[in-house]
Amino acid sequence: MQTKTAAVVIIGNEILTGKTQDANAHFLIRELHDLGVALRRIVMIPDEVPEIATAVRDCSGRFDYVFTSGGVGPTHDDVTIEGIAAAFDRPIVRHPGLVAVIRDTFGSATEESHLRMADAPQGSELIYAATTVWPVLVTVNVYILPGVPRIFCDKFAAIRERFRAAPYHTGAVITREDEFNLAGRLNQVAAMNPGVSIGSYPSFESGDYHVKITIEANEDETFKRARGLLLKLLDPASIVRSE
Amino acid sequence: MQTKTAAVVIIGNEILTGKTQDANAHFLIRELHDLGVALRRIVMIPDEVPEIATAVRDCSGRFDYVFTSGGVGPTHDDVTIEGIAAAFDRPIVRHPGLVAVIRDTFGSATEESHLRMADAPQGSELIYAATTVWPVLVTVNVYILPGVPRIFCDKFAAIRERFRAAPYHTGAVITREDEFNLAGRLNQVAAMNPGVSIGSYPSFESGDYHVKITIEANEDETFKRARGLLLKLLDPASIVRSE
Repeated sequence: MQTKTAAVVIIGNEILTGKTQDANAHFLIRELHDLGVALRRIVMIPDEVPEIATAVRDCSGRFDYVFTSGGVGPTHDDVTIEGIAAAFDRPIVRHPGLVAVIRDTFGSATEESHLRMADAPQGSELIYAATTVWPVLVTVNVYILPGVPRIFCDKFAAIRERFRAAPYHTGAVITREDEFNLAGRLNQVAAMNPGVSIGSYPSFESGDYHVKITIEANEDETFKRARGLLLKLLDPASIVRSE
Repeated sequence: MQTKTAAVVIIGNEILTGKTQDANAHFLIRELHDLGVALRRIVMIPDEVPEIATAVRDCSGRFDYVFTSGGVGPTHDDVTIEGIAAAFDRPIVRHPGLVAVIRDTFGSATEESHLRMADAPQGSELIYAATTVWPVLVTVNVYILPGVPRIFCDKFAAIRERFRAAPYHTGAVITREDEFNLAGRLNQVAAMNPGVSIGSYPSFESGDYHVKITIEANEDETFKRARGLLLKLLDPASIVRSE
C-alpha cells in the first residue's frame, strides 16, 4: 500500500513575528506520524490571500491531504477562505450547512458579521462529528482548521480516524562511533534498503559525543532487514544502546 | 526604507516525523523580529534534493535573505549542499577556504570523509567570525546553517548584526468586546493605516473571553496614529489593558 502524504499550512502573522508560538504544526507532526501518514511539508505564511493561494494550490496538487491552521475568524485579518478559494479558482458562496450551525448557535442575535463565517469556497464539504459543534470544512483535499490550539486539536481529533494507515516501524541505535567514519556504512545500509529511512543525528551535549542512528519503514520485514544489517556493520563495543 | 524580507528553510526528516522538535525556526523568528527583518515564510521539508532545490529557489527569488537549517553533515542524509546547488543550477566544487579550515581542525588525520564537508555550490562565499571556528557558507542570498541548535545559534549570532534594520514598533490592546462586533472597527483601522499590521486574537482560556488586538509598524509615527484611532474606536469600559 502506498503511504498517504500530507502537508500542513500554518497561516498567521502572529506566528512569523513571534507573538504566538506555533502549537498546531507541532501537534499534527505527532498525530500524523502516529496515524502512519507521511508529513512531507510544513509551511508557515502570513495572513495574505496571494500567499495562502500559492501555498495551498502547491500543496494540494502534490500531497494527498492538506491541513490549514488559522485565519478563519470574523476579522479583517481572517483571509484563509479567500486564499483557498483563490487557490482553486472558485467563487466564495454562503454554505447552507454552516448557516444552519450559526443560526443554531446565535439564535435571534444572528447578524451579518456571524453569517460571514458561513462563507466557503464553492463545492466545499462539511464533516460533522459528534464531539464538536462546528463541522470541519473541506475544500477538495484541504481540511480547514482554526488557529486557536484547543479548537484545532478538538476538530482534528474528531476527524483523525479517517486518515489512519499502517503504522511506522521505528528504531534507533546510539553509538559512540565518529559520524565521519560511519558515513560509508550508513550509505551502504540506505542504498541496500530503498524503502527505509535512515537518519543520522550527532549530539555534542554534555561533552559525551554520540550519534543517534534512526531507522523507519512502513513494513516490518523491511524494517527488520535494515536494522539487522546496520547492527552487523556497527562496532559492537561502541554501541551505547539500541531502541 | 523598504523592510528587508526573509525566509527560513528547515531541512530534516527528523522534524517532520517528530523525532526532533524544531528549535531553529523558533529561534530565528525572535531574532529576525528583533533585528527588524520581516520573516515572510518558514518551510520545513525532508532531506531530499528536489524538495530542497524547489524550496530554496522559490524563497531565494522572492525574499532578501534565506536561512537554511540542517543537512550539512557527512552522512548520506546530508544533501542540503546538493539541493542548494540544484536550486541555482550550479556545480558543486571543493571550496579552498573550507579545505583550509578542515585541515586546521583534523590535521594529519584529515580524510576524504572530512574533506567532503568542503564541498559547496560554485561561487559560494564564506563569512568568517571571531566567535566561531567554522565560517558561515553563503550561496547567493542563502545562508547555510547546521541543524544542531547550539551550533545554529552560535553561527547566526556571529553574523546577525549584518541584518540589523529599523526595529518594529509594537503594541497591543486587550478587550472584552466580542470579535464579531469588533470586526468592522478593526477593518476601518486597517484600511486607514496601510503600513500597519493589525492582528486580532480571541482567547477562550479559563472561561474569561477576551480579544488581543496587536498593532505593529516600522515607523513610530504610523504606529502611534493607528494605535490612537484604535483606542478611540474601542469601548473604554471593555478594555482590560493596553501594552
